[in-house]
Amino acid sequence: MLSAPAGPVDVAVVGAGPIGLAVAWRCAARGMRVVVHDPAPGSGASAVAAGMLSPVAEAYFGERELTGLLVESAARWPAFAAELTEASGTDLGYRTEGTLVVGLTGDDLAEAGRLWAYQQELGLPVTPLRPTELRGREPALAPGVRGGALAATDHQVDPRLLVPALRTAARRAGAVLVPAAVRRLSDVDATVTVVAAGCGTAPLTGLPVRPVKGQILRLRAPGGVAPGFRHVIRGYADGESVYLVPRADGEVVLGATVEERTDTTVTAGAVLRLLRAGVDLLPELAEYDLVEAVAGLRPGTPDNAPILGPLPDRPDVLAATGHHRHGIVLTPVTADLIADLVTTGVPDPLLAPFGAERFASTGSGHHRAEEETWT
Amino acid sequence: MLSAPAGPVDVAVVGAGPIGLAVAWRCAARGMRVVVHDPAPGSGASAVAAGMLSPVAEAYFGERELTGLLVESAARWPAFAAELTEASGTDLGYRTEGTLVVGLTGDDLAEAGRLWAYQQELGLPVTPLRPTELRGREPALAPGVRGGALAATDHQVDPRLLVPALRTAARRAGAVLVPAAVRRLSDVDATVTVVAAGCGTAPLTGLPVRPVKGQILRLRAPGGVAPGFRHVIRGYADGESVYLVPRADGEVVLGATVEERTDTTVTAGAVLRLLRAGVDLLPELAEYDLVEAVAGLRPGTPDNAPILGPLPDRPDVLAATGHHRHGIVLTPVTADLIADLVTTGVPDPLLAPFGAERFASTGSGHHRAEEETWT
Repeated sequence: MLSAPAGPVDVAVVGAGPIGLAVAWRCAARGMRVVVHDPAPGSGASAVAAGMLSPVAEAYFGERELTGLLVESAARWPAFAAELTEASGTDLGYRTEGTLVVGLTGDDLAEAGRLWAYQQELGLPVTPLRPTELRGREPALAPGVRGGALAATDHQVDPRLLVPALRTAARRAGAVLVPAAVRRLSDVDATVTVVAAGCGTAPLTGLPVRPVKGQILRLRAPGGVAPGFRHVIRGYADGESVYLVPRADGEVVLGATVEERTDTTVTAGAVLRLLRAGVDLLPELAEYDLVEAVAGLRPGTPDNAPILGPLPDRPDVLAATGHHRHGIVLTPVTADLIADLVTTGVPDPLLAPFGAERFASTGSGHHRAEEETWT
Repeated sequence: MLSAPAGPVDVAVVGAGPIGLAVAWRCAARGMRVVVHDPAPGSGASAVAAGMLSPVAEAYFGERELTGLLVESAARWPAFAAELTEASGTDLGYRTEGTLVVGLTGDDLAEAGRLWAYQQELGLPVTPLRPTELRGREPALAPGVRGGALAATDHQVDPRLLVPALRTAARRAGAVLVPAAVRRLSDVDATVTVVAAGCGTAPLTGLPVRPVKGQILRLRAPGGVAPGFRHVIRGYADGESVYLVPRADGEVVLGATVEERTDTTVTAGAVLRLLRAGVDLLPELAEYDLVEAVAGLRPGTPDNAPILGPLPDRPDVLAATGHHRHGIVLTPVTADLIADLVTTGVPDPLLAPFGAERFASTGSGHHRAEEETWT
């Protein structure tokens, strides 16, 4: 596990986050010789991620192609979770209670309602609930919450269980993990190289992947019991957008900011906004222990969609990066499509909108990325 | 430093917090043989304390005798700080910019105003300020802050510098620190025993000292600069009472809850209330890093005043404990009066209101303590 095999391998994966590990698992399971390079496996965005699998609630205006990929990947999650649980022998915290999207004030509800209408227009399963139905599902919601909708197929998984499970599955399938950094692609000796390096992608490839800071809290229900709610709650609270992810062990993930910053400091203002919105939506959270406040960096791209496929000038180097806020939900489809591409050399039509070449037409990737930040 | 000298010593001090160390320093400096027992020196309330020296702003209704002792001790602080800085060779973070007491809303200001009137009635130096004077002193205060007053003689010190300085001074004066717990007073072989064990006092002595939980935050100004305000700020913000203590190195202490609880968990609700009040008073705090959220236990007594003097049935055992929210400000006077008592056997008249016997008249100390909690 600790040193690279001698001579070239079939597939070198740069990055041992969920994307890199899942690609490695899929490729190794097909009999390829696979090496994964990462000096600090699982220490990137996934260590901070909440693990929502929310293609419906995250279907935003103007991101129709991304939404299609999210829906496709979420549909693969049940089988992926079952297979990975089997292959790793470990639990993933995969839960299917679904997601409630709620609005605290009338304005919040109106904002949420616009999005539900759009999501229904796309044929996505979001169902507005009558107040009694909403409260029947989650009695712990604040009495003042004005309304909500159910996205029954938006599930969740625990990234802090997922990554170790993927590591075990990849290892059992024969992949080798090398705990060292790749500084230049020319240092890699492989038939195909997959760059799944998240925020580390830009210096390796020139692709416009930039860090997008997120601050997130972890709370814990007092007394070692499960939280007093079962659904993932996504809420608009006085204009603040937050989510609450309950885990069986009592943990609640409360997140997250989206900031165009590259530091990982936790700020008083962000913690205040998250806690205020969380407690406004679910008052019992005030009694929960605050056990972690942390910031991570998501790998963002100019159009918020991932970059999946060969570098324009390097057909032997495949990008699988830029998953931004969607790395966990997009893990199954990314792994499947990239492993297929490695195996067959033929890109699945699903990959078409996500090629690296879409950022190559105007100027350098980096320049374009900076411009798009402000659009 | 690490083992007790053979045979009985003149003074055994139980507890190496600021009170115990200051008593040890004063006694050792007078030539007595002194041993201090503590398995975890400085790990009690002082590790969490903010270090305000605020007899004026903390002069509350119905605590006239405590206020007198606070004023007396604060008056000794400048000389104590100078002497300790000299004796230890280290900085204490002692600052004399004074304290601003402010009210966010009209109701907050009315509440604060009642207290200022009482404090002025006692002859204490609290000076209401015109809004322009207030803003002239601290331009960073929120524009909405309705008013405030200056307590110019309410200073501050950094407890995380104070305790190591006291340890150095005590050691240099000849005191010996034994890093082990005292389970029973009968285990101590000394002419006089001083119990300065904070929350650990009750099981040793039966005195009604109970833990009073406090949650506190430490923030840090971004960019390694000093905070954008110089005074200690004590604020009433929508009914929430908080303080903000700026340090030269950029730290800001934001506290504190007062809870009748014995756990040391940090709760979401407490952090929310502290941050909301802090940011409402000083909006720039939103941009500060949140570097620590922690809870500690203060040694409280039924009347909120310390217990200073011999146990009723053990004239050779002196209590120096129960300092509740006032341990740092009361350190100089406690050390002086207890060292005098050890030396002369005659109690200073200042000690009269604070004897242990005041809790002995009705039932057991413990029982009385529980009753008083609810008055």
